[in-house]
Order: sequence, then structure tokens, then C-alpha cells
Amino acid sequence: MSKTSDKSFLPLDMVSFRDESKAVIDFIADYYKNIEKYPVQSKVEPGYLLSKLPDSAPYSPDSLEDVLNDVSDSILPGLTHWQSPSFFAYYQASSSTAGFLGEMLCSAFNVVGFNWISSPAATELESVVLDWMAKMLRLPSSFLFSGTGGGVIHGTTCEAVVCTLAAARDKALKELGDNWENITKFVVYASDQTHFTFQKAAKLVGIPPSNFRFLQTSFATEFAMSPELLRSTIEDDVRSGLVPLYICATLGTTACGAVDSIGELGRVANEYKLWLHIDAAHAGNACICPEFRYFLDGVELASSLSMNPHKWFLTNMDCCCLWLKEPRFLIDSLSSNPEYLENNASKSNVVVDYKDWQVTLSRRFRALKLWIVIRRHGVENLMRHIRSDVELAKQFEALIAEDERFEIVVPRRIVLVLFRLKPKHGLDGNELNRKLLDAINCSGRAFLTQGVVGGIYAIRCVVGATLTEERHMKDLWSLIQEKARLVLLQYSP
Amino acid sequence: MSKTSDKSFLPLDMVSFRDESKAVIDFIADYYKNIEKYPVQSKVEPGYLLSKLPDSAPYSPDSLEDVLNDVSDSILPGLTHWQSPSFFAYYQASSSTAGFLGEMLCSAFNVVGFNWISSPAATELESVVLDWMAKMLRLPSSFLFSGTGGGVIHGTTCEAVVCTLAAARDKALKELGDNWENITKFVVYASDQTHFTFQKAAKLVGIPPSNFRFLQTSFATEFAMSPELLRSTIEDDVRSGLVPLYICATLGTTACGAVDSIGELGRVANEYKLWLHIDAAHAGNACICPEFRYFLDGVELASSLSMNPHKWFLTNMDCCCLWLKEPRFLIDSLSSNPEYLENNASKSNVVVDYKDWQVTLSRRFRALKLWIVIRRHGVENLMRHIRSDVELAKQFEALIAEDERFEIVVPRRIVLVLFRLKPKHGLDGNELNRKLLDAINCSGRAFLTQGVVGGIYAIRCVVGATLTEERHMKDLWSLIQEKARLVLLQYSP
Repeated sequence: MSKTSDKSFLPLDMVSFRDESKAVIDFIADYYKNIEKYPVQSKVEPGYLLSKLPDSAPYSPDSLEDVLNDVSDSILPGLTHWQSPSFFAYYQASSSTAGFLGEMLCSAFNVVGFNWISSPAATELESVVLDWMAKMLRLPSSFLFSGTGGGVIHGTTCEAVVCTLAAARDKALKELGDNWENITKFVVYASDQTHFTFQKAAKLVGIPPSNFRFLQTSFATEFAMSPELLRSTIEDDVRSGLVPLYICATLGTTACGAVDSIGELGRVANEYKLWLHIDAAHAGNACICPEFRYFLDGVELASSLSMNPHKWFLTNMDCCCLWLKEPRFLIDSLSSNPEYLENNASKSNVVVDYKDWQVTLSRRFRALKLWIVIRRHGVENLMRHIRSDVELAKQFEALIAEDERFEIVVPRRIVLVLFRLKPKHGLDGNELNRKLLDAINCSGRAFLTQGVVGGIYAIRCVVGATLTEERHMKDLWSLIQEKARLVLLQYSP
Repeated sequence: MSKTSDKSFLPLDMVSFRDESKAVIDFIADYYKNIEKYPVQSKVEPGYLLSKLPDSAPYSPDSLEDVLNDVSDSILPGLTHWQSPSFFAYYQASSSTAGFLGEMLCSAFNVVGFNWISSPAATELESVVLDWMAKMLRLPSSFLFSGTGGGVIHGTTCEAVVCTLAAARDKALKELGDNWENITKFVVYASDQTHFTFQKAAKLVGIPPSNFRFLQTSFATEFAMSPELLRSTIEDDVRSGLVPLYICATLGTTACGAVDSIGELGRVANEYKLWLHIDAAHAGNACICPEFRYFLDGVELASSLSMNPHKWFLTNMDCCCLWLKEPRFLIDSLSSNPEYLENNASKSNVVVDYKDWQVTLSRRFRALKLWIVIRRHGVENLMRHIRSDVELAKQFEALIAEDERFEIVVPRRIVLVLFRLKPKHGLDGNELNRKLLDAINCSGRAFLTQGVVGGIYAIRCVVGATLTEERHMKDLWSLIQEKARLVLLQYSP
């Protein structure tokens, strides 16, 4: 019955581990080599996989060959290829060899670093790398471990927002005398461009949805949040007996890439003692380049800041850096000390126990991949990477702007180009561009998504997939022109 | 400036991808080969890594060789080796070749399957695999997609509990007339053995901490929750004008492996219309074997059930399966539909959009590894794996029980053996066992942690790391005896 009695079953045998892993590496390398052959957006119909797979688990093992054949035949056709050089949708989940190597090591060590003692290296490397990253972004020392703050790696921005909202909530509850009923008085502020996850997170932590303020934005400010509107809304809420709690400012909004002015919003937030969080998920990556650092001007006024190296920083999913000026508020809200996790290191109070900085207990050793990404590229190449994508986006924007059938809907700030076919012959511009986007995506030669701002349906082109080169941008532009001709032809008198 | 103009910088070049990945595979295989040479629990001092690493990121790239040397010299000494065959602490984060291969493919495809269209295969494989798993556990069809329910893969139990709590909360708020002030009336129930994450999650979703009930357990019921106490506590709360909301029952508690009776608790929960969640994080894995399936008796009375294949099911971190009888309550609570994610498939309502089943938007393709783990082992070997670990735990328990210096503190239910040195000469038993555990862990030859039940400090031995064989159990027993002799000698008159 015991393991030794049955050598035929070894789930982690060194010989097969080596052979099988290398076979999968070859499989993956071939996938990347052929990636341009697949339609970027999957063309399968809903339910396609149900008919291809058995409806229950196999009783006996399948061979690796069978599994990889099924990956080729059943899984690949159902992938939307985020690593394709012609993927311009949503955001870039930019992988790299270095990020992949980091993920391999993380998965192989498979340590669970919930507290320091459960794997000191996992905790300490995370703290080191967050300070490295903070220095690359020239954050004030109030956000660094080597200063008076600190940081943690979460999976995604959503998690960072949930945790900081909870910290702000519990800090305010305490200040109001620990009466939980005050939870219904808290108000949170965002613009109508802020990522929807913020609204979801606010409700999740128990803020009444009616206390969520969407501050309206417009073309006049290129969809940045208005500090005046923030101030007057806060004052209205205070007059109504509510308690302004938290504001989320964004560097690079999802729909159109708008950049909120942290400095101006920060002064209002500080005046009314709100928690200011900066969601720099995507655009934050650009701030390692001196010429983009001004986006972060005023960051010293914020309570917390998050950015995602899994977006555009060559770090495979998932990885979100969160820095806080006063981590103790996060820890006050999220810590717990059951007897079964007691240990001398934690009791000494000289170590970080990351379980108290996040929602979950268990956590992967994500710092490893970020560390390897930074080391294998160096700041030098990481800046080059950002700059070359910005350059491609700039060139693409110029092509659009030169073609009189098109217009740029909101000026590009970094790598998001928001454009559309101009309305024509009294046609509905939104309908026209919906058709154009459908035609582009159905071709399988590129994948882009839409953004709607000020009632205008526009096409988002986010430049920066790892494998994207100049020729892919040229192909994209040819494809857009080709489909635009067809769509416009359909409507000509 | 563009990428093509600088071929010296290719973050995902196929030749180096292949070579470097294979070099890392060899590195990992060597790590596993030598894993018994490392102290299981890391021996580093707090802050050890700060002195070894530069305090800011390198400007120029480092070679892979340098990085791997640093992993050997700086990271490995700071790891607590969860994959060591002599790791008996916390729980098993049991990796396998199959799980590792799945992680590699997930990381390489690096798709973000937040909705169906963003990668249909990621969504559909997840639904398929959850039904496979549900069938292996013989769950009622009310939890299956092929029945009337459905499931999702979260990272951890904590996430599953947060989401189901939010679903229960929002369902109840609606029933009470959509007045958010009722949030302060909700009461949640657990035993004093329930995992601490449940309390953390309840507070996170805005349930007042004073409305959290810890039902006391004792040796008399082997620390299982009392249905009578649950009933009387609920009735007290109702009399006080509170609203009983949610109860978490556990199969295999953390400290001592207690198993709550789902059937008995379920009847009480159903009578008072509470949401019953079953946390089967660890012990749920055993339920694929017919002889352990009785733990799940009464599961038809539950609203939701979670179990973690990353614990003991040969699936590398992280992977938590959550099934729900009525997923619509989860979706009602967590869904959102911003314009930039609109698509025809979602509008058709025939697809699953997993972003509405979890906290975060972005998500990794975790189903891939669970699918490969199941296929490469088959149900046959997965059962054999569970059974051989149980057999090792049983043999170990017998060794302890035969030695009159020791006692089993709570009878073993599955693979957790909770034991201690009997108090002697009027010595404090807790102090004695604390010393024994320290001595064992300091040896570096094994790593175990403690559980405290009914005021008694005991040593937890969780059997089931992937590489553990009979000889490691024998070594452990020798080590325990050796250290027990020394500790007892210290105290002899």
C-alpha cells in the first residue's frame, strides 16, 4: 500500500520530469514560432469544447503525447492569442523568456510564503524587488521599505483596491468610535472612466452602492477627473452627513487612456482626509522612463499606488505591485494570528508576514519572476522596450491622423490609440465603427476592442505585445484600410 | 527607435527561449535531486537577503548564469522546502510533473480569460474540468454544469469564501428590501476550529466582527461543530433581531483535522435558510476514494463547496475548486458589464464569463494544469496516491501510539496525526512539546508545525508531500524519538 511498494507510480520522478518538461518547452517554442498562423481572436462557437472532450475524467492515465495532441487540436483553436504580435485588444499581457523562467522556478519550488518563516526568501525577495521597482519609478521614500512605507505583490489591481479599501474603511471606523453602523456612511469617489473593478471592490467591502460617486468627465479635459467636481461632490456629501472615505485616481484609463492629475486630486483628498489610491496598472510601467515620470507628479500626496508588471512589463501573469505609505493600516485590517501559525520570527516583529497584506493566506512566489525580468533585461532594456512601443503607437496614430476618413477620438497619451471612421452621409458613426471593428476581428488577422467615451464608440488599439514589430503595425493599418473601404462601400449612395 | 531597429533586444526570442528554458529545467531537476540535502525549514536570519542583493535594479542585463547562481546562493538557503519529502508542516502543496507542465503551458499561452471571448478554451476547459472533478467526488448534479449548478476555479479557499459570503449577503439584502443598513444585522457561524480565513473574509465583506459566532468545540466530539449549539445560537440571534446568514462547515480542520457533520449542520442551516458553505480544502481530495466519500454525506444540503487541488492533489499552486448550487447569486453579486468588455457572446447569455464569478477581472488559465494532472494520472493513480499517503499516516500513528512516552491528542481522520509527549513529573506538557518541536525543526531534518486544541499544544504531522516515501516516515520517527530523549533528559530529576 505504501508509496515505495509501487514504483510504477511516481508523480515527480526526475527522469520523466526532465524529459517531459523539455518536450513541453519544444511544444511551446513551436507554438510561438507558429503564432501568426492562428486567428488572433478565437473563431470557435460557444460550447465547442464540450463535444471534443469526454464528459468525465479518464480512469487510466493518458500519455503526454495524447495530452499535447489534444492541446493542439482542442485547446489552441479555442485560445484568443494574447501573445500574438497582432493582439491589440484590452491590454498587453506581455510575456517574455525571463518572465517565463521566473514562473517555472516559482512553480517548481512551489513554496507558500504566507509568513516569513514559511519561506523567508519569498518574503524578503518581494520586499527587495518592490523597493527596486519603487526606485525605478522614483517614488518618494515614504513608499519604500528602506524609507517609511512598504509594498506587496498582489495578483491584480482588483485585489489591491479591495485591500486598500478595507484598510481605509477600518481606519475610518476606528476613528469614528468603532461603531460598525458607520459603514453605511462612507462615500467613495471615482470618475466615469475609472475601471469598473473599483465599483465592484467598494461594494465587496460593504460600501453601499448608492455611496459610490461617478464624477463625470468630458472631451474638454480629455476625460481626466475634475478636481473642482470632486471638491463640490465631497462638500455635498459632508453636508448630507456622509463620510468621504476614498478616491481612486487613474493613470491611463481603460477606455481612452486618460490621465488624472494626481497633484490636483491629491490636494483635495488631503484637505478632506480621504485615502487617495493611484491605479497606474498599465501606464505606471511607462513611468520608469524619465520622459513619462511626470504622470506621477504629486504621488507624495497619495496613500497607495498600484501598477501591474503583468501589463506591458514583460512579466507573465499575474503580478501587481502595491505600495503603501502606511502599511500598518492594511495590516490592522487584514491581519490574524491563529495558534497554528505562531512562530518566533513573527512574534519578534522584525519580519514581514505577507498574509496580513492581502486577502488570501496562500500565495505564490511571484517576486521571483519580477526579479528575473528586471535582472535579465536591466533598466536600460526595459526603458528601450517601453520607448519602442510608444514609438510604434505614435507612428500608428500619425497614419490614422493623415487619413481623412478617420479621426483620433482622444489624443494618445502613451500606447493607446483611440480612433474611428468619421460619420458620413448622416450615417450613425457608432454603427459604422462597430461594423468596422467586427470586420477587422473576423478577419482573424488582428484583434482590437472598443472604447466608448462621451457617447462615441471608438476603436482601441493598444500597442505593445512582446512580439509586435513595425511590420505588424503596417499589416494592421492595411487591414483597417481594407475593411474600412468595404464598410464604407456598403453605405455609399 | 522601433523594435525592428534593434534586434539586440528580443525579450521573447525563440532560440534563447528554448535554450534558456531547458537550462532552467535542468536546474530544477537538480534541485529536486538534491532536495534532501537542504534543511527543510530555512535557517536564515531575518534580513539575510538584504545584505546579499544590491539595493537597486541593475542598469544593464545580467546573464542567466549569474541569475541562476544567485538563485543557488541567495534564494535556496532562504527557502523552506515545501517539496522536501520531510516537509510535514501546514499542509501539502504537492507538486507533480503533470502540474508543472500545466503551469508551463498556462504561463506560456499567458491568456487572460476574464470573459468567454477573451479565450473560449480557458472558460470551457474550466467548466469541463469542474464537472469532471465533481463527478469524481460524486457531487449531486445540482452542483454540476451538466446539472443545474456550476463551478469556478479560484486561487484559494479565502477567495471562495469571500465570494460566497458576498453572494449570500447580497441575496439577503435583496430579500430584506435592498436597504444596505441591514448589513449590520447579518450573523455568520463557524466553530472555534474553522480556518481563520473565514473570520477575515466575513469582516472583509462588511459583516460586523461582533456578529461572528465561534461555536465552541471539545474533545467530546473530536472538535466537530455541534448542531445543537448552532441551533440554539441561531435562535438567540433571531431573538435579538439579528439575521443569521451563513455557516461554514469544515472537512478536516487545520489544527486537528476535525470533520464537521454536513448532514446534521445542513438540516439546521436549511431550516433557518442559512447559506451553508463546505470548506473541504484539504480533506475533500480524499473524497475521490469511495471509502472516504462519507465525509461528504449531506452535501446536497449545502449551497457551496470548495476544495483545493493545490493541497494534496498533485496540482501546483494555486488552484481552488468552488461549486455552487445556484451560481446566479454569485453572479448577481459580482457581475459588471462595462462597455469596453461588451461582446456578442456575452450578450447571447449562452456563455460563462468567469469575471462575474470571482473578485478579480484578470485570471490565469488554471484549468489547464488540473486537466493535465487528472489526465496524466487518471482517477486510478490519483486514488492510489491518496491511499498510499493515508497508509503512511496510519503506520506513523501506530508508531506513536505504541510508544508510551507519547499520546495521540485527537484521533487521525485522514493524514493529519496530532500527537504529543505526555506531560511528565508535573512538567508543563505544552512547554515540553514546544521544546520538542523546536528541537525537531532546528535539526533541519524535518519540518512540522503545531496545533492547539482544548488548551493542549500538540505537534501536527501532515503526511503527503509528493516525494515522501516510507523511509522518510521512518527517519521522522527516529528523529522524533532522538529529540524526545534529549528533551526528556533535560527535565529528568
